Amino acid sequence: MAVIAPSRRVRRTPFSDGVEAAGVKGYTVYNHMLLPTVFRSVVEDYHHLKAAVQVWDVACERQVELRGPDAARLMQMLTPRDLRGMLPGQCFYVPIVDETGGMLNDPVALKLTEDRWWISIADSDLLFWVKALAYGYRLDVLVDEPDISPLAVQGPLADDLMARVFGDAVRAIKFFRFGWFDFNGVSMAVARSGYSKQGGFEIYVDGTKNGMPLWNALMEAGKDLDVYAGCPNLIERIEGGLLSYGNDMTRENTPHECGLGRFCSTQTAIGCVGRDALLRVAKEGPTQQIRAIAIAGDIPVCNQVWPLMAKGKKVGQITSAAASPDYGTNVAIGMVRMTHWDEGTQLEVQTQDGPRVATVYEKFWI
Amino acid sequence: MAVIAPSRRVRRTPFSDGVEAAGVKGYTVYNHMLLPTVFRSVVEDYHHLKAAVQVWDVACERQVELRGPDAARLMQMLTPRDLRGMLPGQCFYVPIVDETGGMLNDPVALKLTEDRWWISIADSDLLFWVKALAYGYRLDVLVDEPDISPLAVQGPLADDLMARVFGDAVRAIKFFRFGWFDFNGVSMAVARSGYSKQGGFEIYVDGTKNGMPLWNALMEAGKDLDVYAGCPNLIERIEGGLLSYGNDMTRENTPHECGLGRFCSTQTAIGCVGRDALLRVAKEGPTQQIRAIAIAGDIPVCNQVWPLMAKGKKVGQITSAAASPDYGTNVAIGMVRMTHWDEGTQLEVQTQDGPRVATVYEKFWI
Repeated sequence: MAVIAPSRRVRRTPFSDGVEAAGVKGYTVYNHMLLPTVFRSVVEDYHHLKAAVQVWDVACERQVELRGPDAARLMQMLTPRDLRGMLPGQCFYVPIVDETGGMLNDPVALKLTEDRWWISIADSDLLFWVKALAYGYRLDVLVDEPDISPLAVQGPLADDLMARVFGDAVRAIKFFRFGWFDFNGVSMAVARSGYSKQGGFEIYVDGTKNGMPLWNALMEAGKDLDVYAGCPNLIERIEGGLLSYGNDMTRENTPHECGLGRFCSTQTAIGCVGRDALLRVAKEGPTQQIRAIAIAGDIPVCNQVWPLMAKGKKVGQITSAAASPDYGTNVAIGMVRMTHWDEGTQLEVQTQDGPRVATVYEKFWI
Repeated sequence: MAVIAPSRRVRRTPFSDGVEAAGVKGYTVYNHMLLPTVFRSVVEDYHHLKAAVQVWDVACERQVELRGPDAARLMQMLTPRDLRGMLPGQCFYVPIVDETGGMLNDPVALKLTEDRWWISIADSDLLFWVKALAYGYRLDVLVDEPDISPLAVQGPLADDLMARVFGDAVRAIKFFRFGWFDFNGVSMAVARSGYSKQGGFEIYVDGTKNGMPLWNALMEAGKDLDVYAGCPNLIERIEGGLLSYGNDMTRENTPHECGLGRFCSTQTAIGCVGRDALLRVAKEGPTQQIRAIAIAGDIPVCNQVWPLMAKGKKVGQITSAAASPDYGTNVAIGMVRMTHWDEGTQLEVQTQDGPRVATVYEKFWI
């Protein structure tokens, strides 16, 4: 396994010093920034995440900020999800598509006020798309990347840890809502959200210089809760069916193929890019869709697309896979054609180590 | 040093099998794709690059293809460089800026025909910018990422190696020109270009399936030329003053600050985005600019911005640095304010290991 070469281009985060002190063993690069992938081991991290509480450096979830009189109009142009009912203090998961309905990103949008929004992005330079749209449409809006770095607190003991640092009021934050909380005199958005199924929060840390003080405060406050540094866990996120942009979906895919059709209100999301293409998709339905897949036997690391075959014909592909200790099988995320997406369908998956037996599941492991 | 976590999101290239067989020891991620950074050691790779010939997997230089009646108009919108005199078969280094003149990318554009262009990009999702501009301006053009993966052949023996595989006609290709050459019955663009100062070519390999056959053919043909797998070399590219987008320049910087003012013809590049801002910059001149910097003493890895100080005040920053065996000093690339950019100016650079003495040079080490 090769090491990751250090350079300024692969940006460190406000929390990198803490991540290194905690003994990070693996990184990936996400939005031109370091994202830890493993601390003790992927399996140890997995068990710990489900039992205690972890602090995650997810600063790589960069924010695209929209500010100005046309901010709301631009935000609705970006997504087929109908935003008319969205209130300040809400988070919305918003598929963002190009003019053909192809996924460009699957971020969480935060409505701060009517004329100020943050888009907390997955791994693509969405800023370029948003800036060029604003330019082409001559919109009266500022689009930029502010000095905001999310820090996630995830796991069953997340409420207890957060209450010690931010006060008991954090317990009242509802799912996909956020409130404003002080840390060292700086007001920060705190949302009940995160890239795991174990519950928890994301703190939108305002200001690089406030990163390590908050990291240290959380670690200090949670000693008896067995708090530790963590990161999005490959096994847990596949069990939970949490998709990863660039892995399980790309610009090739529509939201409907990704199982995100319920977030597309193309009839009412007036002015959104990709509307024409998605109206057609919504009418006809997707011909392939994301499915939970179990794979038998030993599998290698899934670092490339694995074709899914039926009688020698390609009927889909696997893009994420890992051995699950809790479920005693390899859990995987795949895209399967409608002819073979029914529960229980047996397929052959071609890994770099040879073929394995794959079974289509109705639901993820949650 | 942490390892890089494998996933489909960090794309393998058509040449990854060859890169691994050659014993790659380090990777970075570039345009969501693996880019090797070291094979034997950075210093061994450096000496070999200057003495023999290397084959580089630079598939991460993804292409943005513009095709259609408005392709040339869109291409001129993208860059302040005047493209009117550009002919099919030419490569142009083209700064690409946003509406404020901030650098978005510094690619090489290839004009295939009047209505078909490739933009061979540095590390940012330029595709998103180009697609949204085309959409906003309702241009009649297709914008996409084709299955084209550059493979570079660099070093003093590059001509000899290339002639053995593509025929002696490749020797006649002029600098920053390209021609069409057959490999296994597939026509591929071959340009005299590349991210080193040692001379060589970039082959725009058409079709993933043709990647390893070409890699193997080059390795086989060059055995007696001491051909080996290589990659952009940190030391050699700093010596040569080759800037790296994301390292030495970002969206914060204008082309003029990056020493790329000579590529900006804002008076004649009619219709380019950022024209108003760059006219102002061209009139007043930049207040800071890229400079060659020598640093004394031992230095750590430059994985973050190093402030350049004069009498306790910040007057610039270093963004790339490495010890140069051939020049017996640490060579570096920095951005320095005009008050301190004259040759011979002594500054203090603040590395993560403490301060070092830095000297501003007039020219890079070429």
